[in-house]
Amino acid sequence: MTGRLVTLLTDFGTADGYVGELKGVLLSHAPGCVLVDISHEVAPQDIDGARLALARYWRRFPAGTVHVAVIDPGVGSERAALAIESDGRFLVGPDNGVLSPALFALDARAVALPVPPNAAPTFHGRDVFAPAAARLAAGTPLHELGEPVLQPVRRRTPEPLKRADGAVQGEVLTIDRFGNAVTNLYARADGWLEVAGTMLPVVRTYAEVAEGTRVGVIGSSGLLEVAVRNGSAASALHLARGATVIWHPTHRRGG
Amino acid sequence: MTGRLVTLLTDFGTADGYVGELKGVLLSHAPGCVLVDISHEVAPQDIDGARLALARYWRRFPAGTVHVAVIDPGVGSERAALAIESDGRFLVGPDNGVLSPALFALDARAVALPVPPNAAPTFHGRDVFAPAAARLAAGTPLHELGEPVLQPVRRRTPEPLKRADGAVQGEVLTIDRFGNAVTNLYARADGWLEVAGTMLPVVRTYAEVAEGTRVGVIGSSGLLEVAVRNGSAASALHLARGATVIWHPTHRRGG
Amino acid sequence: MTGRLVTLLTDFGTADGYVGELKGVLLSHAPGCVLVDISHEVAPQDIDGARLALARYWRRFPAGTVHVAVIDPGVGSERAALAIESDGRFLVGPDNGVLSPALFALDARAVALPVPPNAAPTFHGRDVFAPAAARLAAGTPLHELGEPVLQPVRRRTPEPLKRADGAVQGEVLTIDRFGNAVTNLYARADGWLEVAGTMLPVVRTYAEVAEGTRVGVIGSSGLLEVAVRNGSAASALHLARGATVIWHPTHRRGG
Repeated sequence: MTGRLVTLLTDFGTADGYVGELKGVLLSHAPGCVLVDISHEVAPQDIDGARLALARYWRRFPAGTVHVAVIDPGVGSERAALAIESDGRFLVGPDNGVLSPALFALDARAVALPVPPNAAPTFHGRDVFAPAAARLAAGTPLHELGEPVLQPVRRRTPEPLKRADGAVQGEVLTIDRFGNAVTNLYARADGWLEVAGTMLPVVRTYAEVAEGTRVGVIGSSGLLEVAVRNGSAASALHLARGATVIWHPTHRRGG
Repeated sequence: MTGRLVTLLTDFGTADGYVGELKGVLLSHAPGCVLVDISHEVAPQDIDGARLALARYWRRFPAGTVHVAVIDPGVGSERAALAIESDGRFLVGPDNGVLSPALFALDARAVALPVPPNAAPTFHGRDVFAPAAARLAAGTPLHELGEPVLQPVRRRTPEPLKRADGAVQGEVLTIDRFGNAVTNLYARADGWLEVAGTMLPVVRTYAEVAEGTRVGVIGSSGLLEVAVRNGSAASALHLARGATVIWHPTHRRGG
Repeated sequence: MTGRLVTLLTDFGTADGYVGELKGVLLSHAPGCVLVDISHEVAPQDIDGARLALARYWRRFPAGTVHVAVIDPGVGSERAALAIESDGRFLVGPDNGVLSPALFALDARAVALPVPPNAAPTFHGRDVFAPAAARLAAGTPLHELGEPVLQPVRRRTPEPLKRADGAVQGEVLTIDRFGNAVTNLYARADGWLEVAGTMLPVVRTYAEVAEGTRVGVIGSSGLLEVAVRNGSAASALHLARGATVIWHPTHRRGG
């Protein structure tokens, strides 16, 4: 039998050894658990970036997986420390919205982890979340870890706005490593995308257009992205999180 | 019994969660496989850099290992998706040359992976390559994964040029993290290296020379490197990929 | 039975494939060992940074763990290659001080690893340290790996200076990813910290102060840190390694 999977998402970087401490605690408390690095390169304290990353992967792992996500600018404050069971997976992390994707499942349950008196007030990752993840990985049921939390913090991706003329107004959620700007628009692979004052065609794949062409494209999670074939849309169009994007149906192509 | 090893080389970075998706799919489809991160920090779309990295490690792993390499600027186009068996290892990735090191082995065989209709046109890593790697890790024979590909793309490191005067002209293949410039010259630990208009002695190890000295040195894969002891040769000599380097035998030391 | 844990700390970066080679050698020589990445992003040749990171994590792992730490500017010189047994853990790496934290334990023993004639003079990580780590992971006793080394290099964190007026003078040891400046001062969560000409209160946790406030705080390894809530103390106060910091007891608060 293989050990339980425990995934790790943090903004710690790796060079300082904090991730090393986390892993040592996990492997000491839950011998045989299988660690899976998601990332330690989340931008410092970027709760929303981590939330969007978590939304991508948490359900891709087998039932029983324990997901640890520690992006924790409020460490040491009164914010709760959470453990969650949702759709057969477990999650631990601070109650600041980073775990939201798992909280929207119908069967989601959350408990508040007690903070031991000797926990370092600046490093709950090591002293609160890793031990809790180890207990879950070892098979301890969620309800034994703490008291139920009825109103955990939920951060939502903003909803796009449907306009009377059939267009849909949204915004850029995040910029990925390739410079693609992921939006909050679910759309079909047609129509036009208005961004930074220009109209871009929406295509099914980069490969349909010439190198350097600016397009809208349906990304791998079903959301419309602004992209430049073999280039960075964020640089070319000066896009950042929150920038407005408007999808227009095909008949509006006059722009 | 331990699970099959599956190594991962991508240009995804980790913070966006794409690598998390890949790992979730692998561990769901091939429970018990052992994931080994090579890198997710390949420069975006740098096929040649990834090819040179792969050349270093693919044969160092035990027979049966599955190597995944997804640097895929042509995703969604007509480029084939490959699975390869070579020298007892398996490899999956796009047919753009990144897997070339394994294609030069005499017994190499390649098949084309079918792209399922529901695969995201922008993310074959998750929807084509990870499922194929999982099948290979689970023991499915190569020929069951697709039809043979007879002419996969092979990218070669350029051959150095032997000159009539005994010198050998080559070029810089890549710059590593330390600023060493790896060349395509196989050479003995003697003679002189002409680079950027200056003659550098070729030594066996950095330790033979004083800090800051510019030298040629035989690197760990047998290729000549331009190096500065405890410094960056690339910065000191303004070297980039493709820069010309010429090895001169010892009697030419007059420079 | 799960395989022995082998942790990896290097300054190689990952993109060049050197870490891939290391992992391939380890998994070939010690099949079933469990690799744990600590970091490959140590600043190039930063022995002290790696030493401080290692101090954080080496004892957090279970007894029997093998820690590999290769930050090796002197590779190929006469510096010894070490294997160490200390407090039930094993360590391998160059004899340049990076392994010091484990050498201060009372029961620490070190041996010198022979360098095989075919080892690449520029890559002992692959050709000396990985094979030695694999042997330790496979259960070979330390004394079979080499001859005892009686005076391995020990690098110490500088001791703070107690002053006649009750203040304690120390220095910044390292800057972490969040811009916190970790000092060599062990102190209680009270008093004042003099740094860059200003007096900062010492608090128990960031959460006690408003965003942007500059404070001293007890870090997770018990050392005083200079921090800015949700900001970078290193940027705000222009701090680097070696900067002077002075702790004053509470009654000196006049500053």
